[in-house]
Amino acid sequence: MSSADRPVSPSEPTEKSAKGPLRVLSGIQPTGRPHWGNYFGAIRQYIDLQEANEGYYFIADLHALTTVRDAAVLRQNVLDTAMDLLALGLDPTKATLFVQSHIPEVSELCWLLLSGTPMGLLQRCVAYKEKVEKGLPADVGLFTYPVLQAADILAYDSQLVPVGADQVQHIEVCRDIASRFNHQFGDTFVLPKANVLDASAKVPGTDGEKMSKSYDNTLPLFGEVKKISKQIMRITTDSRPMEDPKEPEDDHLFQLFRLFGNPDEIDAMAAMYRRGGFGYGDVKKAIAQSSEAYFADAREKRAELEQNVDYVHQVLAEGAEKARNVAAKVLGRAQSACGLR
Amino acid sequence: MSSADRPVSPSEPTEKSAKGPLRVLSGIQPTGRPHWGNYFGAIRQYIDLQEANEGYYFIADLHALTTVRDAAVLRQNVLDTAMDLLALGLDPTKATLFVQSHIPEVSELCWLLLSGTPMGLLQRCVAYKEKVEKGLPADVGLFTYPVLQAADILAYDSQLVPVGADQVQHIEVCRDIASRFNHQFGDTFVLPKANVLDASAKVPGTDGEKMSKSYDNTLPLFGEVKKISKQIMRITTDSRPMEDPKEPEDDHLFQLFRLFGNPDEIDAMAAMYRRGGFGYGDVKKAIAQSSEAYFADAREKRAELEQNVDYVHQVLAEGAEKARNVAAKVLGRAQSACGLR
Repeated sequence: MSSADRPVSPSEPTEKSAKGPLRVLSGIQPTGRPHWGNYFGAIRQYIDLQEANEGYYFIADLHALTTVRDAAVLRQNVLDTAMDLLALGLDPTKATLFVQSHIPEVSELCWLLLSGTPMGLLQRCVAYKEKVEKGLPADVGLFTYPVLQAADILAYDSQLVPVGADQVQHIEVCRDIASRFNHQFGDTFVLPKANVLDASAKVPGTDGEKMSKSYDNTLPLFGEVKKISKQIMRITTDSRPMEDPKEPEDDHLFQLFRLFGNPDEIDAMAAMYRRGGFGYGDVKKAIAQSSEAYFADAREKRAELEQNVDYVHQVLAEGAEKARNVAAKVLGRAQSACGLR
Repeated sequence: MSSADRPVSPSEPTEKSAKGPLRVLSGIQPTGRPHWGNYFGAIRQYIDLQEANEGYYFIADLHALTTVRDAAVLRQNVLDTAMDLLALGLDPTKATLFVQSHIPEVSELCWLLLSGTPMGLLQRCVAYKEKVEKGLPADVGLFTYPVLQAADILAYDSQLVPVGADQVQHIEVCRDIASRFNHQFGDTFVLPKANVLDASAKVPGTDGEKMSKSYDNTLPLFGEVKKISKQIMRITTDSRPMEDPKEPEDDHLFQLFRLFGNPDEIDAMAAMYRRGGFGYGDVKKAIAQSSEAYFADAREKRAELEQNVDYVHQVLAEGAEKARNVAAKVLGRAQSACGLR
């Protein structure tokens, strides 16, 4: 049994448990195909955590319901996401991969947490307000999203939750909800800590702005190589003369190349920028070649998985079984604490 | 298989299914000991429905969580409520009695319904607004209460839901939520109808006002007979002279007596009122005697159940198994429809 199998009181320093491997939880939205920005900004980072920790990775189909309202699309997205993660190195012998809705205990825990959560706590959540301001319908699922997220986190006694900076507030909400419950009913839940993902690696999109689905400027991880190469060749550039020396750090093509090149290649490319006398087309070709090489193994692995969907489903079934064992214990603790059992 | 085992489209007249027995669902809050007002205004009426219908009765412990935040109290209340209902005639060979939280499918369904429910639908619910105005904390569990209620109703393909007039809006919310889901994902849920409980039987409290826990004027069904008699003897009366003839219909003592007396006794009592020349103390004694006789069997049955708690738990376990079988099918339909399976 790991140290995560018992509740940790809010006052207990997490540094103590930081000595051993931590229970890490990450939820991945099955809302579409991953792009370079997703990979370098998040996926690679949380998959890396499987090495030294006890990783629990779930495909958040219940969360996706707030936006994906087409059954066939959702089904395909969940399978695609599982294949993406396995192809990108998520190792089911090291970490636990499962689908959120396969764990009924999470939905059960969600209601226990909805009761006792003040409306004000959710009303202050910025992500909800922003989404509604952007035009998404004011939906109860969207509003209560942080509570389901809290149930996900608490169900596995998670200690560390890798998130983007925009999700840190939701981890605070989770800690608040867990603390309230612990305070009222006795120590039940482990309080998680946010592990803010490193956003320092700049991943510009095809227009030079930050790569993001909402800007429609993404380059996909998987897909036809030729098509991706064409997209790379169409990346916006400035109109400075070829012969001018240029500062590489300011150029989005260089920022993209740096993601894939080895240190020597990056140094050589930086030197070329500073010398001047090169065409952006050459940089684009270098990006196309190095990115293709970089993702070659993952692409091959994914093609294999597509031919072996049964294996993928088996991984998810085994992951669900393992996750349910943990979640059932935590739910049992919570149910006893509040008098449901 | 009953006709309730398949979804009924909103356009399908419920009159059709009204020919056979209906699937009736009633949720009972385990929030305290039942009083005469509860019995005549609700309990007796929904238990009666078990005779000609397929009754599903659940003890709403998940709903109670929004108000009962003490584990030992909740546990005792759930057991007490089960014993109350069995003592009052709920027959487990005719109807299904179970505890809400024993059915994980309801919590699972609840999240599916939270997604896709517009905030405005819940914001318009009068019960929530009234409770918050009365000083209850603005709690997310209280706010989303009608969605859990909808999950309860829909999980069993319920056709008829006996409710007080104040709960009719929640049945409308349930129909709205179910219709939205059916519209978006295809026919999945049976649309229930409210069966508004008969509130014509006036049950005055010890102060002459409507009997209600919030007025602290209740007379309990169960408990020490002597104590209850004393409470009855202390019921407020007016100060008209004994000899005056009185109109029985306007008098709360007469209204109470009428609940328990047989037609001959009621007629005799009414004649005595109209004649005048009687003391309210005599009426009170008559109420004490007739109410004691009326509830004698139930009181005896309850004493037996208190000595046989294992039997009560067995009834609840068998009820849960039966209810889960139904709920699992409905949840499966909903999960397939929206792409979770």
